[in-house]
Formats: sequence, C-alpha cells, structure tokens
Amino acid sequence: MDQTSLKRLLEEVASGAVSTDEALARLRLRASASLAEGVTLDLDREGRCGQPEVVLGQGKTLEQIRAAVSGLADAGQRALVTRLDPGHGESLLADYPQGLHLPEARLFVLGPSASEIGPPWPESGEAMVISAGAADRAVALEALATARFYGVSAGMASDVGVSGLHRLLPHAKALTEARLHIVVAGMEGALPSVVAGLFGKPVIAVPTSVGYGTGLGGLSAVLAMLNSCAAGVAVVNVDNGFGAGAMAAKIIGEAR
Amino acid sequence: MDQTSLKRLLEEVASGAVSTDEALARLRLRASASLAEGVTLDLDREGRCGQPEVVLGQGKTLEQIRAAVSGLADAGQRALVTRLDPGHGESLLADYPQGLHLPEARLFVLGPSASEIGPPWPESGEAMVISAGAADRAVALEALATARFYGVSAGMASDVGVSGLHRLLPHAKALTEARLHIVVAGMEGALPSVVAGLFGKPVIAVPTSVGYGTGLGGLSAVLAMLNSCAAGVAVVNVDNGFGAGAMAAKIIGEAR
Amino acid sequence: MDQTSLKRLLEEVASGAVSTDEALARLRLRASASLAEGVTLDLDREGRCGQPEVVLGQGKTLEQIRAAVSGLADAGQRALVTRLDPGHGESLLADYPQGLHLPEARLFVLGPSASEIGPPWPESGEAMVISAGAADRAVALEALATARFYGVSAGMASDVGVSGLHRLLPHAKALTEARLHIVVAGMEGALPSVVAGLFGKPVIAVPTSVGYGTGLGGLSAVLAMLNSCAAGVAVVNVDNGFGAGAMAAKIIGEAR
Amino acid sequence: MDQTSLKRLLEEVASGAVSTDEALARLRLRASASLAEGVTLDLDREGRCGQPEVVLGQGKTLEQIRAAVSGLADAGQRALVTRLDPGHGESLLADYPQGLHLPEARLFVLGPSASEIGPPWPESGEAMVISAGAADRAVALEALATARFYGVSAGMASDVGVSGLHRLLPHAKALTEARLHIVVAGMEGALPSVVAGLFGKPVIAVPTSVGYGTGLGGLSAVLAMLNSCAAGVAVVNVDNGFGAGAMAAKIIGEAR
Amino acid sequence: MDQTSLKRLLEEVASGAVSTDEALARLRLRASASLAEGVTLDLDREGRCGQPEVVLGQGKTLEQIRAAVSGLADAGQRALVTRLDPGHGESLLADYPQGLHLPEARLFVLGPSASEIGPPWPESGEAMVISAGAADRAVALEALATARFYGVSAGMASDVGVSGLHRLLPHAKALTEARLHIVVAGMEGALPSVVAGLFGKPVIAVPTSVGYGTGLGGLSAVLAMLNSCAAGVAVVNVDNGFGAGAMAAKIIGEAR
Amino acid sequence: MDQTSLKRLLEEVASGAVSTDEALARLRLRASASLAEGVTLDLDREGRCGQPEVVLGQGKTLEQIRAAVSGLADAGQRALVTRLDPGHGESLLADYPQGLHLPEARLFVLGPSASEIGPPWPESGEAMVISAGAADRAVALEALATARFYGVSAGMASDVGVSGLHRLLPHAKALTEARLHIVVAGMEGALPSVVAGLFGKPVIAVPTSVGYGTGLGGLSAVLAMLNSCAAGVAVVNVDNGFGAGAMAAKIIGEAR
Amino acid sequence: MDQTSLKRLLEEVASGAVSTDEALARLRLRASASLAEGVTLDLDREGRCGQPEVVLGQGKTLEQIRAAVSGLADAGQRALVTRLDPGHGESLLADYPQGLHLPEARLFVLGPSASEIGPPWPESGEAMVISAGAADRAVALEALATARFYGVSAGMASDVGVSGLHRLLPHAKALTEARLHIVVAGMEGALPSVVAGLFGKPVIAVPTSVGYGTGLGGLSAVLAMLNSCAAGVAVVNVDNGFGAGAMAAKIIGEAR
Amino acid sequence: MDQTSLKRLLEEVASGAVSTDEALARLRLRASASLAEGVTLDLDREGRCGQPEVVLGQGKTLEQIRAAVSGLADAGQRALVTRLDPGHGESLLADYPQGLHLPEARLFVLGPSASEIGPPWPESGEAMVISAGAADRAVALEALATARFYGVSAGMASDVGVSGLHRLLPHAKALTEARLHIVVAGMEGALPSVVAGLFGKPVIAVPTSVGYGTGLGGLSAVLAMLNSCAAGVAVVNVDNGFGAGAMAAKIIGEAR
Repeated sequence: MDQTSLKRLLEEVASGAVSTDEALARLRLRASASLAEGVTLDLDREGRCGQPEVVLGQGKTLEQIRAAVSGLADAGQRALVTRLDPGHGESLLADYPQGLHLPEARLFVLGPSASEIGPPWPESGEAMVISAGAADRAVALEALATARFYGVSAGMASDVGVSGLHRLLPHAKALTEARLHIVVAGMEGALPSVVAGLFGKPVIAVPTSVGYGTGLGGLSAVLAMLNSCAAGVAVVNVDNGFGAGAMAAKIIGEAR
Repeated sequence: MDQTSLKRLLEEVASGAVSTDEALARLRLRASASLAEGVTLDLDREGRCGQPEVVLGQGKTLEQIRAAVSGLADAGQRALVTRLDPGHGESLLADYPQGLHLPEARLFVLGPSASEIGPPWPESGEAMVISAGAADRAVALEALATARFYGVSAGMASDVGVSGLHRLLPHAKALTEARLHIVVAGMEGALPSVVAGLFGKPVIAVPTSVGYGTGLGGLSAVLAMLNSCAAGVAVVNVDNGFGAGAMAAKIIGEAR
Repeated sequence: MDQTSLKRLLEEVASGAVSTDEALARLRLRASASLAEGVTLDLDREGRCGQPEVVLGQGKTLEQIRAAVSGLADAGQRALVTRLDPGHGESLLADYPQGLHLPEARLFVLGPSASEIGPPWPESGEAMVISAGAADRAVALEALATARFYGVSAGMASDVGVSGLHRLLPHAKALTEARLHIVVAGMEGALPSVVAGLFGKPVIAVPTSVGYGTGLGGLSAVLAMLNSCAAGVAVVNVDNGFGAGAMAAKIIGEAR
Repeated sequence: MDQTSLKRLLEEVASGAVSTDEALARLRLRASASLAEGVTLDLDREGRCGQPEVVLGQGKTLEQIRAAVSGLADAGQRALVTRLDPGHGESLLADYPQGLHLPEARLFVLGPSASEIGPPWPESGEAMVISAGAADRAVALEALATARFYGVSAGMASDVGVSGLHRLLPHAKALTEARLHIVVAGMEGALPSVVAGLFGKPVIAVPTSVGYGTGLGGLSAVLAMLNSCAAGVAVVNVDNGFGAGAMAAKIIGEAR
Repeated sequence: MDQTSLKRLLEEVASGAVSTDEALARLRLRASASLAEGVTLDLDREGRCGQPEVVLGQGKTLEQIRAAVSGLADAGQRALVTRLDPGHGESLLADYPQGLHLPEARLFVLGPSASEIGPPWPESGEAMVISAGAADRAVALEALATARFYGVSAGMASDVGVSGLHRLLPHAKALTEARLHIVVAGMEGALPSVVAGLFGKPVIAVPTSVGYGTGLGGLSAVLAMLNSCAAGVAVVNVDNGFGAGAMAAKIIGEAR
Repeated sequence: MDQTSLKRLLEEVASGAVSTDEALARLRLRASASLAEGVTLDLDREGRCGQPEVVLGQGKTLEQIRAAVSGLADAGQRALVTRLDPGHGESLLADYPQGLHLPEARLFVLGPSASEIGPPWPESGEAMVISAGAADRAVALEALATARFYGVSAGMASDVGVSGLHRLLPHAKALTEARLHIVVAGMEGALPSVVAGLFGKPVIAVPTSVGYGTGLGGLSAVLAMLNSCAAGVAVVNVDNGFGAGAMAAKIIGEAR
Repeated sequence: MDQTSLKRLLEEVASGAVSTDEALARLRLRASASLAEGVTLDLDREGRCGQPEVVLGQGKTLEQIRAAVSGLADAGQRALVTRLDPGHGESLLADYPQGLHLPEARLFVLGPSASEIGPPWPESGEAMVISAGAADRAVALEALATARFYGVSAGMASDVGVSGLHRLLPHAKALTEARLHIVVAGMEGALPSVVAGLFGKPVIAVPTSVGYGTGLGGLSAVLAMLNSCAAGVAVVNVDNGFGAGAMAAKIIGEAR
Repeated sequence: MDQTSLKRLLEEVASGAVSTDEALARLRLRASASLAEGVTLDLDREGRCGQPEVVLGQGKTLEQIRAAVSGLADAGQRALVTRLDPGHGESLLADYPQGLHLPEARLFVLGPSASEIGPPWPESGEAMVISAGAADRAVALEALATARFYGVSAGMASDVGVSGLHRLLPHAKALTEARLHIVVAGMEGALPSVVAGLFGKPVIAVPTSVGYGTGLGGLSAVLAMLNSCAAGVAVVNVDNGFGAGAMAAKIIGEAR
C-alpha cells in the first residue's frame, strides 16, 4: 500500500470525512474480491502495479477460470488468461464470443481491443521477439501477444538460431530500431548471448523446454542464459513467454 | 556488424574511396586488439553495444588484468574491472592512483569520473538497489557502482528483507519514484516477488550466495526468483551485481 | 514399545500372572495384523503415537486399500485413506455408504464423525490453512480435512499469494487468533516467510507442485521454504497436505 | 501491521489526538532503526511476532555484527547472535563481558538471563533435543540454547542414532514426557522417522551436514526427512539448529 | 575368459589335438549367438559367471524378447525375462504354456522348475526379503522370485516399515536365521539402516520409486541407503528387485 | 561468412561489376528462405558447413515439417528429417513416395540416393556403430543412417555390452579396420571406455535413455562417458544418434 | 533386541531368578555407555550384530575420539577408528603405542592382533580388493584393512582400470579363487560392471571421489555403478572403503 | 587383445615354436609392469591404441608420479604427466632437466622432442584451439600442448567469445584451413555452437570451470555444449584439455 494514498486516507479520517470503520472497510474492500472455487481476485493491481490482474490457466479447473474471468468482467476490467488448455479456451470463447482465443499461444483475451492483439504478427516494433527455432514459436507468440495486450508495439523474427546466425541479417533494421529484445531459445540457449553481443539492447531471455536428454526440460537453457558472458541479459522461467512480455511492457512503460 | 555501416563501407569501396584491402583491413582493425597473455580486447563494444568493454577480474592473473586495463587506457577508453581480488585491486591502484578501488564491491574504475562513482551512496535515483540482508551488501554495492559507472543515477535501500517487510516503508517514496528496481537477496529469494507485487516496477532480481545448506550457494534463490508469481521479474546469475547494473543502465539508456 | 507397559508386563510375568509364552505372544499380537495382499496394519498406533493408522492410497491396488480399510473397520478403528484415485474413492463409497469421499482432496474417511469433516469449510479455527493460489486448493483441502479428522478446529484462507499481499487483510483476525498456520504455496514458495514475518505464529510450510519449468515439480518451493529467513517455519514434502494436517493436530494436541 | 493497532491509530487520527504527519511518522518510526554498515534492525519484531530480532552472524563483518548488537542493546532488547566465527565471538565477549559466548554452538547471548542459558545441559524438558551422532552435537547445542534463550525448558539426548536404537531406552521417560522432539541427524537422516514412529510427538527434524560423498552436504538427510513415512515430522534447513529452537519456542509458546 | 581354460586350449593346440583355426572358432563360437532384431545372446554366461543369461524386457520389442527366449530355449538353457509388460508376458505364456508368468513381479520364467518358483511365498529362508510398505510389494516379489530362480531358498516379510517397527517382531525368528536380508523401501529409505542395526546380517538395500515430490522417483531412498550409518549395507538401483535377487544368489552360492 | 567470399564481393563492388544494393541483396538472399509457420531454412549451410540443412522433427507440427521439406525440395536440396513421429513419417511418405521412411530410426530421407541409405545394414565400414544392448538399437540405427546419408561407409555391431565383452570378438576385424567408432550405450555407459581402451580409435560416445531409476533418463550414462578414463572419447547428447552420425561424417570428410 | 534373549530374560523374571527392576536395569545397562563430550558407545553391538562398535573419526574432535577409544578399551573391546585426520592418528598412537596407525588408509586399530592387520598387503584371499587407479589406493587400503580387522583373509590388485583391462590378467588366479570382489573406482566407475561380467563373483562396488568436473565428487561413479548392466553388483557410499570391508566381512562370516 | 596377434600366437604354440607356459607368460608379460606405490603401467598401450600411456598427476603422490615416469623412461617410452601440482612439476624437472615443465598447462613432458612442444604457440595448424576468454587459457594450452605431444600440428586463437564474435575474424583463414576445431569455453558455453555453425568443421568442445554461481563449476557449459543445435559438436569433461588434445590427435592420425 503506497504512502501517498495511505496519507490521504489518514487525512480524510482526521477531517471526519471518513469514519474509522469506513476507512478500515475501504482498505479491505479495495484489496480483493473473493469468488467461488477458492479464487480471490486482486482488482486493484492495475492501480498499484500498472498492469491488471492476469489469470494463470494452468492447474485451474474450468470453473475456477470462469469464476476469475467473469469476476474481472464484472469489475469492468480487461482479462488475459495464460497457459490455457485448448478445450478451456474453446469454452471461454463460447461464453464470450467477442474475446480472442490464440490456441498456439495458449492465451484468451477479453476486452475492448482484443481483436487487435492477434495476427497478422508485425515484423518490427518497440519490443522485438526473436526465436531460435520453429519449435519455440508457441512461447514466442505468448510473449508477443502479452506485450501487445499491455499496449506495447511489438514484432517478431522467427527461427534464427545460432547454428545459422546470418539468418538474423534480414531483421537487422528492426532489431536495431527496437528498444529491447525478447530472445526465446531452447536447447543450448546461446542465442541471447549472441544477440546481446551483436546489438547491445537489453535482452529478456526466455528459455524453452525444446530439446531432449540433457536439455533437462529447459534447465540447460536456463543455466546457459544465466551464465551469459554478455552484459544486459536477464532471464525468466522456462517457457514463460507471458513473463517476458509483461516485463517488456513494464520497461517500455517506464521509458515513455 | 550492422547493415548500415556495412553498406556505407560497400559504397566507399564501389566509389573507389576505399580499396578492397583497406576495406578488409578496416573490418579487422575495428574488431579487436590482441594483447599479451592471451587477452583480446573488444575496443568497438561501446560503438556496437552502447557500453564499453569490461574486464572480468575473476580467474585472470594480475598480468592479464594489467594488460587489459592498459590496453583500454591506451585506446583512450574508460575501464571497469569486476570481481577483483583485494590484492589485485591494490596493485591496480598503485599503477593508476587516479583510479577508484572499491574493495567491498570488488571493483576498480579508471576514467574521468571515477571519483564520482564511489560513496557516499545515494538513497534515491532512477534505479533503486534494494538488498534483503546486510550480508548481501557487497553484491548490492557492485550493482550500484556499475550502474553509476554507466551514467545512471542510482540509489540504495539496505537490509529490508521479507521477515520484516515494514522496513521498506521509509524508502517508499524513493522506490515509487524510481524507474526500475534491482532487488538483491539470498536465502529463500522472496524479496523480488514481494517488491514487484507492491510497487509494480520492472525488477532485476539478483540472487546471492548468502545462506547455507539447501541454499546451495544461491541456487535456491535463483529458482525462487525464476518462479516468481509476480509479473515483471527477470533474473541474473548468482552474485552478479555487475550484470544487474549493466542491464539497468541499458534499460534506462533506452528510456531516455 | 514404551518402558511403562514393558515393566508392567515384566511384573505380570514375575508374578506368574502371565506365562512367558503368553507374554511373548502378547507382544506379538499387539504389534500388528497381517492381512492379504501384503498389507500389515499397525493397530496399536493410536495407543503409541496418539493418532490412528492411516492408509496411503497411492501406489496401492484397490484390493490392498480395501484390505486395509476393512481391517481397520474390523478392529473398530476409524479410517483415513489419502492420495486416492477418484475411481478407488467411488469404490470405497459403494462399499461404505456412510463414509465421506472428498475427491478434490483425494481423501476417504470412515468413522462416527465422517460427515462433520467435510464442507462447508470454516474460515477460522485453531489451525489456519493459507493457500497462495487457486491451483493449490487441493493440497490445502487435504491439510484442512486431515486436521479436522484428527479433531482440530481448522479454517482456510485461499488465493492470497505474495504478488498481492493485501489480500491477506480480510483474514487478519482469524490469522491472529489461530495457534498455528499451515501455508500452502507452489512456484517461488515465498508465502510462508512472509506470513511468519507478519504474524509470528509457528508455520508449517507445504510446498506444492504448482508451477512449471524451473519449478521442478515443487522442488524450488521446497528449497525456498527451507531457506526461509523468518524464524518459525518448518517444511513437509511436496503436496503433503496430509502431513501438515497431522503435524498440526499433534502440535495442538500437545497444547491442550 | 495488524488490524487492531492500525484501527486504533486511525481512531486517534479521527479524534484529532494524533495528526496525520505524526501518524505517518509513527508508522515509520516503529518500523526499524537504520544503522551504519547497511544494517537495519527490526526493533518491533517481538511485538509483532513474539520473538525479538536475531542477528545472523554468518556473512557479516565484525563491524556489522557489532552495529547490530549495540543497536539492540541501545533499544533495551536482548540479543542472540548465531553462526558466529569464534574470533567474532571473542570480540563480542570483550565488548560485553556480561554476555555468554558458546563457541561450540556458535552463539553469543546478551541480556538479563544470559548466564542461565549455557551448560550444564539438562536431560529433560518440554522440548527434547535428540542427536544421532557425536558429530551432530554442535547443531544440537545450537537448537538447545536457542530454545532456552526463548524461555523454553529444554533437554538433550546425544548420540543415539538408528544403528543402535536401544541407546534411546535410557531416555525413554524424558522423551515421553516432553511436548515435542527436535531430532538432529546427518548421513541417512532416518532418526526422525523412527522417533516419530516410537513416541508420536511432533518432530522438528534438523538435517546436518555430517557425512560425505552422497551425503551431499546434508541434502540426502533433508530428502530423507521430507519423505518420512511417519506422520508428524517437519523439516528445517541443514544445520539450522537455531531455526528448530525458534520453531519449538513458538509451538510451546502457543501451547501455554 | 579365464586363465585355466585358455591354458587348456593352448595345450590342445600345442599337442595338435586342436588346429589354430578350430581354436579361434571355438573361442568365437562360445562367445555368443547373434540373433535377428539386433539381439546377441551370451550363452556362456553360466559357465563364466555362475548364472545364466537373463533377458531385460524393458525397452525391447516383443520380437526382440521372443528372439532371445527362443535362442535360450534352443541352446537348452533356462530363461528369465524381467521388467516385462503384462501384454508381452501373456504372449510369452501363449508361446510357452509350460512357463510361469508372474505379472505382479513383471517376470516370465521358462525351464524345468518354473512352476516351483511362484507362490505361495515362503515366510523364511536363507535370504529374507523385507518390504517397508504394501506399495513396495512388486519389487519385493521380483527379488524373491529371482532368488528362487537361481536356486536360493528365500522368504518374505511385508509392510513392516520404520513408522511401526514393532511389526518386525513376528518375523524375528526368520530374520535371525537367514544368511542375508534384502530390504525393499521407498520414501525416506530408512529401513535398511534399522534392520542392519538390529540383526547385523549383510543387507542388500533396494530403493523403490514409491513416494512423491522430493522422493524424486526413488533417488531420495537411494541417497539415504548409500549414507546408512549402519555397517553392512550395499545398494542396488531403484526398483531393481532382480539385481538384489541375483546378488543374493551369488553371495549364498559362494557360501556353500 | 568467410573472409574469402567477402573479399571477392568487395572487389566486385569496387570494380563496379556489382552495385552496393545488389551486394547487400546478395548477402541477404544467400542467407535464408523464410517460409510459412515460422520456419526459416538455412539453404547455404552445405556451402558454409559442408553438410546440408537438416530438419529436427521433434516439437514441430506436421505443417512446419512439410513446409521445411518442400522448401528444401524446391531449392533442389536433399532432405533429412530426424526424431519424427511415426504418423508424421507416414504423411511425408504419402507426399513423397520416392522418399525413405525408417520408423525405427525415426528418420525420413528425400533425395537421389535415399533408397541406398536403408537396410540391409552393413557389418563393416569407415565408421562402426557399436551398441551395448538391443534396446539401444533405435539410436544406433539413427547414427548409422545419418552417417550413410552424408556419404560415409558405415557398419554396425549390436548388443555387445560390457557384461559380456567377449561378444565383441566376432566384430574385431571390422572394428580394427574402421577409422572411428560410434559407441551407443545406456545404463552405466561403460562401453565407450572399454572400446577406446581395447581398439584405440576415436570414439564418439552416444548415451541413451535406456535404463531406469538412477539412470536418470540417460544422465548417468552421459556422466560416465564424460568421465571416461580412456583417451579419445567425446560425447553427444542423450539419444542423439543424428549428432554422432553427423560428427562422424565431418571427421571422415576431413580425413579424405 | 532379539527374541531369544528377550524370552530368556522373561523366563528368568518368571522364575524369580531376576527381579523386574533388575530386568529393566539389565536391558538398560546392556544398551550403551554414555561418555563425556556427547559420545554414547554401543558396547553390545558385537553380540547383536556380529561386529564390534566402530568410531567414525570424521567430524569428531580429538577429545570425542579419545573418549570413544578409551571407552572401548575400558570395556575390553577392540577399537577401529576410521576417516582419521593424520594428526589425530598421531595423538592416538602416542596414547596407545601398541596400536596401529595407517595414515594412508586413515585408520587406527587397537587390540590383540593390531599389528597383523597392516602391510605387507597380500595379493590373494577370500576377499579381493581391486582398484582402478593409483589415486584410488587410499580407499582400497581402507577396505582391505577393515576386512582384515574383522578377521577376513583379503588381498589386493591395484591400478587395473578399464582403459587397459589386460592388466587384470596377472591377477586372474587370485580373482577366480576369491569368494567376492570389492571393486574401487572413480571417474566413470565402469570397472565393477566389467569385473562382474568377467568373473561372476558378488561385487561390492566402491565409488571414489577421484576425478574432476562432471565427476561431481564421485557421484558419476555412484550412478554408473548403480546402473550396472551386470548382475551381482551392489554399491556403498563414495570413498566408503570401511563400509565395503565391513560388508565383505559379514558376507564371508555368513559363508563359514 | 586383437584377433590377429592371438592367432599368430596360437599358430606358434601349434607349431611348437612356443610352449604353452611361454605363451601364457607372454600374454602376461606384455600386459603391464607393476611398480611400487600401487602403480601399474600399461606399456603396450601405444601398440594397442596408437598413443603411449599417460600419467594423470591429480590425486597421486609425488612418489607415485615419480614411479610412473621412471617406469616409462626405463621402458624407453616418452612420458606426459597431466594436471600436475606446480611443486610436483618442479621436482620432476629437477629429476629430469631435459624435460619440459609447462606450469600454466600443468603438464610435464619427457622425451626426444620435449622442447619442441612448448612456446611460442603457433597461430595455425591442422587442429585449431579456440578459447572464449583469457581465463580459459590454461585449459586451452593443455589441449594445444597435448596435441603437439602426439605429433599434431596445432595452433591457437585466444579470447574470442560470443559477446564479441567479430574477434574471430582475424583468425578466419587459420580456422578455415584447419581440419578440426577444439573450442574451449566456460560460463554459458555457447562458442562451440557458433563456431560449428560458422565454419562447419568437427568441433571438440571443452567446457571449463570458469564462471560462478549457476555456472556450477562448468556443468552449465557442459549442458549447453551437449545440447548444441549445431551438427558436428562432441564434448569432453570439464577442464579436460588433455582429452580434447588426445581426441584431436586420434582423429588427425586416422585422417593421414
């Protein structure tokens, strides 16, 4: 709870404009909305953190997801659901035909501009998403669509891994003009180091679970990225395209 | 090598202004300077990446470090040496009395504004470094001084870990006004999640090796930070204060 | 085998009241009941440990589970079966319609007060179960129902993770009045540290397998909880809601 | 910050008894005391959590430790310093000759009853500390002295590991009468399971780094303890005698 | 190839009784029989190692398994197939109705005494198999039947884990009279240490994958068993009942 | 991009034979072909690296695989698809009946000599593939067929693991005459060390995921192979038959 | 406590020959002797387990070790101290000049036949210790001397690892005549599989910490040995020569 | 033992030219020379494997190393000692002043051409050693000198890691002309993938322990290299410059 709003509330209590019970209630009411199925929404997150509440679809029942989405809709807020089973996505689309279901990116979006978030995917923007292999595409799209959900102009360059670095060349202009790079790679996870060394932008590195054997479900890529010898690389969880897109949106939000 | 400068060079070759041998030589000369002791400097890094070459002191002999620092000085560039043994730092200070040796942060700085990088440490700035425990201070100072080396206005809030979160309160104003937070924590590594949830700024999380037993030399904190349930957290290597400071400088550089 | 009952038996042997063969037989008879399918019940556990034998459903065939439940019923003891496949639970309910099947918590309960253990779930009690996310609900319910099976008054606060700590506020009164907290969290596992720091009660931390990538099936949460910088946190196995509930019941049993 | 005191403060503001600036200042003043060397003390912890602030000696310089101890002394609070280098302990004892230095347990204690915390070590009490091997003694003493610092009556049974379980017999009476057991073991970490199975008390299991090879510095014992098949076992970090003692004190505090 | 038979062959060559080509052929012919599907049988293993070739069913196609079994049958040798899918076992039984299929132990046996290897399972013998939980029964039966296949008199005691050690008592006589113990346990893997400490026989410890979370698929039990503080414990792979039975047979074979 | 061709291009630009735009375009055109579904082909790889582009089938949709194969076919290049689902392989064969589908090796080959790559498998050649067990056969075939795709004469010796080393004898001549050995083994991964010690050829070691429990999906074999005490052993990823075959082809290509 | 002696005691109580208090005391007195410094000796271990109590030197202070050795000596028992610092060994030798200090094996032996346990080391015996490299010698000697301490005739074959298996030949006769093999190896840990495959004896595999990098302090060797494809291999902890020697003594003791 | 020489020996036995005892003796005599201190030399390795016996210095006493070197010298063979403590190297140089001690590479060489193996280090050759950072130089020199010991023409390119790839350009000619590349890198271990993608030569990847935190002593680099998406990369142990040099020598030896 930030100092400024706390102070304002204290002054209103002091002036009698607000009773102490009312003040306590307000503190509570703002906090959250408790729904069925054990779901509690953080409806004040946009005010506090600059980004609205997001619903992690994984591990939740369809009922829990529905409760969360309708809770956000009832509060007049936009909704982004991530890591969604395709079937759950179809059900949400049946509930909210005006929403946008992106099954490859495992996302569902509800809100005024939902339709503007989906394809065709741009090839340039303030944030550029670069993916190492075609198999990393789902995670890259999750990052791209998340950034766009948060209002960031974002583009994509696909399948340009370190075993053929010259494939980066056609994208050189877009990469040079972007403010930051989201680099998505599995296997040995070397692409973020190389991109950071070549272009010098801040790099949000997204390891993916693409690989086998000693890839350890993405852990090898995580380790490689954390140990990058290039300056300006920071890492999010395996396959966490959402996290990278949200981080990019916060960084670019601060840059405006 | 970016497309624009390559095209310009091609045009100069085409116009006869530059011979092909000269062109090839230029490409090579810009590349690097090969010194004694197996050290090769990347003197063009600032042009390419926006930040000058940095010397990682760890694992290098004093001779290798000296060769690198004098190579940078000869090229008229500033120098930052990181993860420096105290003895090596003393030797560098004897060589370059105008330099700045920060033994707690294990840094040595050489260049016009070296003296302005050191203490007293500010309590506010564009980038705020927040450390969980007093034992995390060395890494926090490495991040702070690195950010300042790169021209970022940066401040610090110390010893405000999750077992007593109210200790964050006196720093609330500075934290709210900063553009990003560098959060330094060992042990369970929970502070970045909490700070990201409270303030909503982009958080560069720096796990430290502070802890014991299942702390696994910082690996537990790495894992906690990568698994943060808060949006807007990205992670660098254990004890990598330099990496966090450089990332912060790149982000803030893009924001200007 | 405790000293007191051993001494009493020795005295009975000495007095001739009990023959040595009888003494040896008694020692054996009390020990256990060997059933079909390789199942051996510890029918004396309640006498020895204060809590009756419990049947771990995982890894057992339906026949083994049935043998155990009927063995306990035949001995006039209550039965709790944990980590039960839904199908096995349905079969047990068909066998014992007076029992309680809680599929979300993967539990089956047989005994006088079975019906009093299930929903509606209280919001306060001697033990408070706090869960970080809606996806942790199954484990939280397992802890809650186990504690209630053992006669503890227990309540629950759901979906109040560290990315929005103010969601704890509506539960502040119940949390302050409880004797201990069971804190259930996956992902970065930070909630136990924060709750221990805010309320100061003994915290039984239950890591869950909720998460992905570097969550490592709950191992990251385990490590974070073991490395808690807050005093008064102890940890059970991943998803071990039963273990937490049983521990809580023992602690509160000693407190009476 | 708990609801009750927040409400009281709001009422005082509402009544005009306290100005808003004063209210804000009070919130801040209570929070913490910022000392030299990056140390911030949580002076309100006893009020909030029932146990005073403790100083983790590991990873801190002597200057940081001294700053913390004198800060606590100046605030009229007792001090417990843990995981202390012997040299640092000697220095503290020179500063505060009335304090108690327990080098084997790596503790320093300052306060009215410091002398009552040390040896001779009792053999019975509300909390019984049981150690598997003679090499686990340092950790066991840390747990024992910590519990006593927090006012718990505690005793010890040493060197009674699973390879010779009958060595538990002479301690059977004390173990049966205690409210809880702290079980300290390295190597295979089997003792907590066995003790929980025999006596049925709540067991706080403390893995130690005693062992070699696949002991993995205590990690094997951690894993064994987390996987205990006995109900009523919860685990703290490797060698974390302090954590076990503090947890015991909280549990017994709630039991009174 | 052992020195004695090599010397005999050399003498036969020297005496002219055997030609050099014949000698070389013999060396080759004894070595192995190459079958279809990439299977090569080691038909001389019984002569060399005292135990006939065994067929690991896991990872092999039904065709590969059939080729191996018929190869052994054609060579007049007994056959033991381990880790067999139930369907593959049914197919083998259809091929060889005189064989023995033990689906719970995942074994198929072919040979004169096949029928004598199966149930009813004895409760005493030269080798005693002790299992901690009912869920460990499949692995325990694999060990028991393997030992019996190799001609060892072996018995079993089931479901006598460390959380209720007194369940060992009814088996005390059989355990004391056996020459060695095979102890099968998952979860914390503590039973081998306890049995070795109580009875002092050589213990072959078999970790099982029974457990969850930090059980890590049996790795925690492996580590606990390798770190046993009791002398006389050696460990085989997770769920490797076959390996334990074969080891037991070799030890008892040497003891005759 | 190599110096020689860059210099030639520069000279052509200097002479006016090539315009700067044309030069830039050529640099770009050579680089890659961007297809639908996020696939970018590296059509110049054979010129640059001596081996044509290969399509990793794993993690790709059938549409992505088809786009890649038709892209290669359109460019007049041969195609090798690896780690292919059987169903995807059938679909490709329906598209290109002249291709070769090797379901056991999970490969699809398209090009002039496709039919010559498949069975019958030779028993000798420049490269010898040696597999430890019948269950390692799929990976061994992947290595064998890959080497043959790249024009290497290669043979195979199957099921000759370390528990019966004399099974190597019938292959001694072929093994002695080969230029290098690819050794494929799961479980303890000991075969490469033994083969390197006996024959002294360069050994490419391929760990497989054959095994269970502490085999850790092939990681134990990886570790054993990396720690080989025999000189001349280098290791590829778990189950990476393709990588071993390609490495062999490069080595033998250099040897001609 | 075994059934037979318990029954005898019960009969004596029944006959009045022993009072109940006396019986209880006897049970206690036999159990253990509690010494200074937290050391508790298991003086009845030889009666119960067939091998006397052994003192693990690692992690104990010299005072603790001295207390244990003199406790054993006072009880008229032999003493074996393992994993001893050289300095502690020298101190014990000064205390007990009739003892045997083997610094390379880190052992100290006290008792009638101490001098017969040391060098010269035999080359044959009931148990043969086989070591892979010269650097494994210390662990091999620990196993050899331990077996001899327990009265086993044991011999050694050194430095015969898998990279030159023919070095085993000169030892073939001794290896064939032994009852079991203790195989000591670091690095890839392949020797036990090969020896078991060649000779067919029961193999106690001792991984050592010899190696570097991915040797992981012996863990790679542990994993290789647990995954042995040869039947008849069981594994003890890293560098646990004592454990292997004790296991061998138990096996051979049963074989007599 | 290869078939050809075995057959020849058999024929000599058959012809009476060699007695059976003599034949057996020869088999034994060729095998090895057993020295003091538990060292057994494999004097026939060059005949069998094409490379002479090498002495691993690590973990051996000076006496063991001396015994091995003099054993090789007595047999008229060249000697290479690796991973040598500087002090041990000085002692060997005092014993054999004509030898070559390379302390940075931790090698000692004895033999006719020892002096030709050392510096100055060439910049081109059949094998090119490429190191990522100045701190990797010791391992790179170990690889370089080992390859030269085995008669390979080898050169080096230093400090050309992925954060500034253009530093590879001045070495492009030498890299293009070499037959294979040894790529030495710590931290994220990305250089082998990039070099293999750019030049297409077979790459022997050598991970180093350079790094910190999640570098895990070189394990992160190992994983990255094993997961390389570029074809033609095989990996040796961490810091195993010797292994890479020996592998290179074997490959180039086959190529002649």
